[in-house]
Amino acid sequence: MELRTIGVVHTTYTEHRSTPQQASLNAEESAWVEVDDDLADGLEALEEFDYVWLITWLGDDAVRSEGPLSEVPDLVAHLDLSVGSFATRGPFRPTPLGLHLVELVSVVGSRVTFRGVDMVEGTVVVDIKPYVKEFDRPDQDTRSGWYAKAALAEVAKQRGILA
Amino acid sequence: MELRTIGVVHTTYTEHRSTPQQASLNAEESAWVEVDDDLADGLEALEEFDYVWLITWLGDDAVRSEGPLSEVPDLVAHLDLSVGSFATRGPFRPTPLGLHLVELVSVVGSRVTFRGVDMVEGTVVVDIKPYVKEFDRPDQDTRSGWYAKAALAEVAKQRGILA
Repeated sequence: MELRTIGVVHTTYTEHRSTPQQASLNAEESAWVEVDDDLADGLEALEEFDYVWLITWLGDDAVRSEGPLSEVPDLVAHLDLSVGSFATRGPFRPTPLGLHLVELVSVVGSRVTFRGVDMVEGTVVVDIKPYVKEFDRPDQDTRSGWYAKAALAEVAKQRGILA
Repeated sequence: MELRTIGVVHTTYTEHRSTPQQASLNAEESAWVEVDDDLADGLEALEEFDYVWLITWLGDDAVRSEGPLSEVPDLVAHLDLSVGSFATRGPFRPTPLGLHLVELVSVVGSRVTFRGVDMVEGTVVVDIKPYVKEFDRPDQDTRSGWYAKAALAEVAKQRGILA
């Protein structure tokens, strides 16, 4: 199963450390995907959607891909949670694919501009798909598992409630 | 960029023709992913989420992967719409990855049972990620592009409004 690069993300972030962890946490900033010229035809009608999924390849960068399968993300470590890699959205996984929901700004030629940036400059894109609410939006409210606990604990920590 | 199989989907569908096109259109039926034994640890804490994303490989099956880049899905053809492959969720794309939102039923050992089946028996899974509403759910209502038009036209056709 050989993936091909279909484009590259251009952002202002050059270091993983300072890059936002999720697009939704940095929803206003914009960036763009430069799609390979021979694939620009594939973007036809994409602009009719408000949001798109970017699937990226996170594995060529040792900083993100090293570590054992069940390595616990930093945020979880101080919470004493044990979380498998398939229960996280981070890069520490057997298949280093990233899934990003971004807001579409424009499609001009081979350039797809979007808002919601959580990728470093040069991140490789392997697929673009439209966000379709009929497919992608559960009817009911959903539990966010350990992410919810971690977020609450982080707030508590910031407020000095936890040690 | 070499993908590895992390598991295989087991369903009752043996032919693409009769397989539902999206998990949300067949939300009640259940099926399961048999995750590779050496990766079962990676499922820890996944059960705390109500929905998960399955990323599948659709490319080894010629029925699904043949066709030119901008091939128009059947549904769109009679609507006289021209749609690029990145504006569809179908298998006709440069990188034959499938993205499926499914409702988690249980995680027992290496078996992940879910509701919402749009895969044929034996579909290869390359990643499992939790659905996190804070990341995956746009705040506002979103346009579904040509999917919305196609759905309306399909209804009209079924009711004999269109030729």
